[in-house]
Amino acid sequence: MNLDAFVAAALDEDIGPGDRTTETVIPADATGSAYVLAKSDLVVCGHEVARKILQAAARRYDGEIAYVVEHPDGARVPAGTVVARVQGSLRGIIVGERTALNCLMKMSGIATHVRGWVDAAAGSAVRIVDTRKTTPLWRALEKYAVRCGGGHNHRHALYDGVMVKDNHIWATGSLKEAVRRARSENHHLIRIEVEARTLAEVDEALETDADVILLDNLDDATLQQAIARCREVRPHVVLEASGNITPERIERIKHFGLDVISAGGLIHQARWVDLSMKLDRDPGSS
Amino acid sequence: MNLDAFVAAALDEDIGPGDRTTETVIPADATGSAYVLAKSDLVVCGHEVARKILQAAARRYDGEIAYVVEHPDGARVPAGTVVARVQGSLRGIIVGERTALNCLMKMSGIATHVRGWVDAAAGSAVRIVDTRKTTPLWRALEKYAVRCGGGHNHRHALYDGVMVKDNHIWATGSLKEAVRRARSENHHLIRIEVEARTLAEVDEALETDADVILLDNLDDATLQQAIARCREVRPHVVLEASGNITPERIERIKHFGLDVISAGGLIHQARWVDLSMKLDRDPGSS
Amino acid sequence: MNLDAFVAAALDEDIGPGDRTTETVIPADATGSAYVLAKSDLVVCGHEVARKILQAAARRYDGEIAYVVEHPDGARVPAGTVVARVQGSLRGIIVGERTALNCLMKMSGIATHVRGWVDAAAGSAVRIVDTRKTTPLWRALEKYAVRCGGGHNHRHALYDGVMVKDNHIWATGSLKEAVRRARSENHHLIRIEVEARTLAEVDEALETDADVILLDNLDDATLQQAIARCREVRPHVVLEASGNITPERIERIKHFGLDVISAGGLIHQARWVDLSMKLDRDPGSS
Amino acid sequence: MNLDAFVAAALDEDIGPGDRTTETVIPADATGSAYVLAKSDLVVCGHEVARKILQAAARRYDGEIAYVVEHPDGARVPAGTVVARVQGSLRGIIVGERTALNCLMKMSGIATHVRGWVDAAAGSAVRIVDTRKTTPLWRALEKYAVRCGGGHNHRHALYDGVMVKDNHIWATGSLKEAVRRARSENHHLIRIEVEARTLAEVDEALETDADVILLDNLDDATLQQAIARCREVRPHVVLEASGNITPERIERIKHFGLDVISAGGLIHQARWVDLSMKLDRDPGSS
Amino acid sequence: MNLDAFVAAALDEDIGPGDRTTETVIPADATGSAYVLAKSDLVVCGHEVARKILQAAARRYDGEIAYVVEHPDGARVPAGTVVARVQGSLRGIIVGERTALNCLMKMSGIATHVRGWVDAAAGSAVRIVDTRKTTPLWRALEKYAVRCGGGHNHRHALYDGVMVKDNHIWATGSLKEAVRRARSENHHLIRIEVEARTLAEVDEALETDADVILLDNLDDATLQQAIARCREVRPHVVLEASGNITPERIERIKHFGLDVISAGGLIHQARWVDLSMKLDRDPGSS
Amino acid sequence: MNLDAFVAAALDEDIGPGDRTTETVIPADATGSAYVLAKSDLVVCGHEVARKILQAAARRYDGEIAYVVEHPDGARVPAGTVVARVQGSLRGIIVGERTALNCLMKMSGIATHVRGWVDAAAGSAVRIVDTRKTTPLWRALEKYAVRCGGGHNHRHALYDGVMVKDNHIWATGSLKEAVRRARSENHHLIRIEVEARTLAEVDEALETDADVILLDNLDDATLQQAIARCREVRPHVVLEASGNITPERIERIKHFGLDVISAGGLIHQARWVDLSMKLDRDPGSS
Repeated sequence: MNLDAFVAAALDEDIGPGDRTTETVIPADATGSAYVLAKSDLVVCGHEVARKILQAAARRYDGEIAYVVEHPDGARVPAGTVVARVQGSLRGIIVGERTALNCLMKMSGIATHVRGWVDAAAGSAVRIVDTRKTTPLWRALEKYAVRCGGGHNHRHALYDGVMVKDNHIWATGSLKEAVRRARSENHHLIRIEVEARTLAEVDEALETDADVILLDNLDDATLQQAIARCREVRPHVVLEASGNITPERIERIKHFGLDVISAGGLIHQARWVDLSMKLDRDPGSS
Repeated sequence: MNLDAFVAAALDEDIGPGDRTTETVIPADATGSAYVLAKSDLVVCGHEVARKILQAAARRYDGEIAYVVEHPDGARVPAGTVVARVQGSLRGIIVGERTALNCLMKMSGIATHVRGWVDAAAGSAVRIVDTRKTTPLWRALEKYAVRCGGGHNHRHALYDGVMVKDNHIWATGSLKEAVRRARSENHHLIRIEVEARTLAEVDEALETDADVILLDNLDDATLQQAIARCREVRPHVVLEASGNITPERIERIKHFGLDVISAGGLIHQARWVDLSMKLDRDPGSS
Repeated sequence: MNLDAFVAAALDEDIGPGDRTTETVIPADATGSAYVLAKSDLVVCGHEVARKILQAAARRYDGEIAYVVEHPDGARVPAGTVVARVQGSLRGIIVGERTALNCLMKMSGIATHVRGWVDAAAGSAVRIVDTRKTTPLWRALEKYAVRCGGGHNHRHALYDGVMVKDNHIWATGSLKEAVRRARSENHHLIRIEVEARTLAEVDEALETDADVILLDNLDDATLQQAIARCREVRPHVVLEASGNITPERIERIKHFGLDVISAGGLIHQARWVDLSMKLDRDPGSS
Repeated sequence: MNLDAFVAAALDEDIGPGDRTTETVIPADATGSAYVLAKSDLVVCGHEVARKILQAAARRYDGEIAYVVEHPDGARVPAGTVVARVQGSLRGIIVGERTALNCLMKMSGIATHVRGWVDAAAGSAVRIVDTRKTTPLWRALEKYAVRCGGGHNHRHALYDGVMVKDNHIWATGSLKEAVRRARSENHHLIRIEVEARTLAEVDEALETDADVILLDNLDDATLQQAIARCREVRPHVVLEASGNITPERIERIKHFGLDVISAGGLIHQARWVDLSMKLDRDPGSS
Repeated sequence: MNLDAFVAAALDEDIGPGDRTTETVIPADATGSAYVLAKSDLVVCGHEVARKILQAAARRYDGEIAYVVEHPDGARVPAGTVVARVQGSLRGIIVGERTALNCLMKMSGIATHVRGWVDAAAGSAVRIVDTRKTTPLWRALEKYAVRCGGGHNHRHALYDGVMVKDNHIWATGSLKEAVRRARSENHHLIRIEVEARTLAEVDEALETDADVILLDNLDDATLQQAIARCREVRPHVVLEASGNITPERIERIKHFGLDVISAGGLIHQARWVDLSMKLDRDPGSS
Repeated sequence: MNLDAFVAAALDEDIGPGDRTTETVIPADATGSAYVLAKSDLVVCGHEVARKILQAAARRYDGEIAYVVEHPDGARVPAGTVVARVQGSLRGIIVGERTALNCLMKMSGIATHVRGWVDAAAGSAVRIVDTRKTTPLWRALEKYAVRCGGGHNHRHALYDGVMVKDNHIWATGSLKEAVRRARSENHHLIRIEVEARTLAEVDEALETDADVILLDNLDDATLQQAIARCREVRPHVVLEASGNITPERIERIKHFGLDVISAGGLIHQARWVDLSMKLDRDPGSS
């Protein structure tokens, strides 16, 4: 589902056969202007989605809306900041407002939340990355919000990277055989990551030609041991840690020598932040 | 977007042209079984979505999956509870797992969160309801999760109820005229709600034939005054309060005589709860 | 299906892989102009659909069409009136003509037919409304045509109003229980209507808190009795009559005190009226 | 739009996010049976559409419905006849009833109407055929109903036949040149029909190799002259008449030597006939 | 699937969630220009598809692309010819290049291949036509390429012509009965073709009123006999030959008196020809 | 577009509103059986697509078809071999035959063609892989056919691998900067390939951390030099050659030390091979 299809489905969900209030109360050709206001300190995210939603809403009434960004995606702004201004079809503004804000509040919520985790890794080269624990139908937007918050992304989906996990190993009967099959059947621009949850599994992983090793759910001491062993045997293998990641733990482990720390909570523990859209009511404003 | 389309889009997002790991590592005809485990105390929600996701994933490999509910949607269960069991196509289970869990974790997160707010209203007849602050493309599922948590829903969308808000009133120039137009142009099975944010606006609302009055952002004392005035003038009007709603405030205001308390935070302040899917590895299990 | 999707499907139905005549006979870049002529007295309806169809047809040939309304939807015009003029891609005009006219003839047919029924109610406040007996895939357009003819609409569909009918009551076992369940499970902006087909059922309906009572298939005398009883017990309940409605009967019952009279025949007994599209052949015209 | 897509769109139009009445009043697993009753004399048409609608409605509730035809499409039945019986998901029956009946009433209305026109041609070999004046999105179903009423179809759409009409001739500048281009650019399994509205045009048409000549809007005397001239010059050319066709006129002209008489009114002047669906309430019935 | 849907699907196939290289390496607002170069002698075909692909690619980045045709579809050009120039969004050009070229190379390959076969028929009136042996989802484009190469088309699909083949005859039990049924059930603008594979079948075909006879898989001598017999009995029947057609055989049989020679190899034996897109690197070029 | 959508679009393209021949000549409930025959030596490919097409065609007539594979995808069979048998709805078989065969002939054509190229690499470990030069809307099927012919795939599309090509380097101004940006912005499971077309570019590529180097359009001698240099500096870098690849050249260069040889001609220079579907006419066969 590309962004235009997403926007169409989102508006269809809220408007369906019509907005019974706005369409009966406000004339089709009225115009107006409004601004989008941050109501708490936040990292802005979602302008393009909001713009497309408002413009698509306006087109339902054969109208148009101009959307001017005041603070771009990724900007940190204090409460009270106007982050965007809109001008055009009044029906479009009022009918699209809720759906546009729902996107801005959710996406800015993630960007703001991620910012805190990424800041905890400051001073190190470790990448803080998301996972596939994303809201279905929202993956591209949520992963974009992670980047706006200063984070990086893991693979996008099941098709652009290989991760040989516990279940694959069990079903195959052997870590080495699973990695061998994946390498043999996949093209040469795909990297292979293999999950290791004990030092014994780390050793087994090191005997394969996996490009990346995921050190999953190891305590700090074991994690350090595992990293040391990997760096000794295969200095250039990419090392990723996951499991029980919090900003506090990131500060503790960021200098252990990891390349990547991944955490689903970057996305699924974020809450919406508050933004609102206010009509300009001063008669000269539109 | 109906549930089948949602499920198809969700899988397409994660699988696209194929799961590079599972499809190269696990034989197409392997079968297995697994269980879904609550990893914290929670209210279960999302079985039907999870079932459809797993079954659709299995169909990609010409396989099938049986999904047995152990604790139905709406049940409160402690950490460690098995809430469902699945049996069938191993590829289907492994490929569909993440998307299915993403739905269960998000929906159970809302149901669990709502439960707390609804419990705060215990002992009164007031309905705790959601708003249109929902994740785009998720409205029906999120509103269902609210019901599983013991809450009620507000109107579904812009098409099944009339809410004359501040912006409508301003654009029309008069609260009464806005209500009049809405009544005149809408069918006779639609109720009309009008927003009042001061006692003066409450008085004006009472002069219309609006079916519902939304007392928005009033402090406790003003709220009580407003309710008293409404009950005196139009005893049967439905009264709804919104703005700054928390479980604590619900406890304070639940006996004021309101019919409905609405809060977007029921949904957008909920975080995912933790559930996982574990393969049965005992050789006799599949 | 929104209007753009409807238009695309309508053209696809008639054009499919191409108009074998026009595309082989008329050059792609030819332009022309034409007018839409009422061939009988009628109430005009369907301009927006016709415009979108012609413009979409022109876009197939990378052309454009301007559509100028001479008499707007809802206008009563005598035979021989030019109701619209079009100018632009000649292929677009000729290829889109039939589909555009099919919409105008059908929709104007309904508006013209409804006008007669609504006129029969003149002098009273009773609303003449349609039902869900509409042509599948045409509901929004047919209900719009009813409004152009001076009528009002009933609920749009099963999702924006509750009607507890005979079958629901039978399946529940009790009218009161059915109304109670509907109220309990639906949001507070939805009204509930209940069907009553005898005076006994009217009495039972009056014991519920239904917002609307449908007096279905009562003869004139019984209808009057039913209305009197309702007005006595619940003065503000909305009263609707249906069954065997004709313009003649509307004249008879319009002063009985009903709020609404509903009739499927507003739509399904209407026939198309005749309109045609004529090319301007005067050399200076395009 | 194939039939399955049509059925899905039709149900989506009426049900959308849900039937607020049935889904709150009737249990999901209840079953029942019903019959479809002709309430006037009619020619039955639409069983397959009705069946698919009811079955699709039932699938929304994970249920099934069996649909048994008692009198097939095309059968003439008197008022009071049971034309079909259904058994299965009670929600499916009640939710799908209106949409299924809307199709049956409309399609049987056309079949019944067409039957009268076709009977007027009895005793001759002339085919009574429809035109492209059909309800957008309903062409295949309406043309099927014409066949159920004993009529034949004209070309389905712009892509499966060539009709060189007045506008094409005018735009090309010459009837002969228009026919020549159409023949040259079209494949050899497509026939070419050309419209003639005067005897002079008939002569011109006879000089082309058009396969079919449409004698449009000629009075009875001129029509006879035209037919005679055609049969003399090109005995095997197919001759079609159109314009001001009524059953009465069909009786007058049916022995003139025409092959085909076409009339849009076969479809657009038909009104719905009355059918209803009744639940079996006898306790032993389901 | 119309051309816009085809273009969208083609780009979605190659770009999906994004071009990982171009989107990370080239700025969104960079512009450039390029030219499309024929790398062998060829007949050009596919400009409109290429243009739409590049423009749709540019729209993904809110950019535009102008596409200027230097040599139109159907032109024969030598290796080294610039056939088109493009200017606009650099991302659009680079991201859309491969898909656009894939269409141009395939379509020009067919046009070039067909040209050779059609040239073999020079000096006769026989039409060289394609069949339904086309790449699924590519029929309209491949048949267009045949026309660009100087060929003609056979029926487009199963819906715009009747071909009674061996299997139909066998299943019906009789060639005559099969033709009779087809005539009776089809409209009067459809021609009927019947397949004959022996002289006996030719005789049987001549006893029907089939419009076209397909002489399938006859050797040259038998083919001549068959044509003679047909011309004697039904001088105006359209005669088509198929089976083992090559340019060499076309030269042999082109004066036998056939109307049409059909060959699937026109399309499925064509190979792509080579075209490339080169960026203008001269600093003043964009 | 997944396989089910592909199949639906393919049938829709050929059948549209109906097969005018089969539907008027063959009864809806007739059944039969048939076999798919290789008419030349070939590598079979396409059974699943053919099966789904035939089954979908049968469902149009409420019928079913069983498809039994006699020789699986990838098998080499001589002319005259029966590769599959089908049994079921006769309409389904006849209507679906052409589309099913079009897929089998095209896909088997590629598999057969690829087999020859892959055999040329026998005795070495080099992978023969395809490119993105595929028929739009056919990528997954064509890449599958390459695997059935013994080849391997390159990246699937622009989203599952990074290839920094000439145009990217030019637009960035520096090979190193382009690789740096791509690495920085892409996730850690994506490999980066960089194109080098001279020994100087090879040296520059070796200074980056690109995972794969594409040696494009080098002659044999230069290719050997380039490989030697790469293996000396970065022994584990993956080396791919492309440009002017033929089976003969593969034999020459297969022992140079390359990992991968890529060639678009694997797919776009393949021609369809001949297969046909024959009905069993022996009365006892169905």
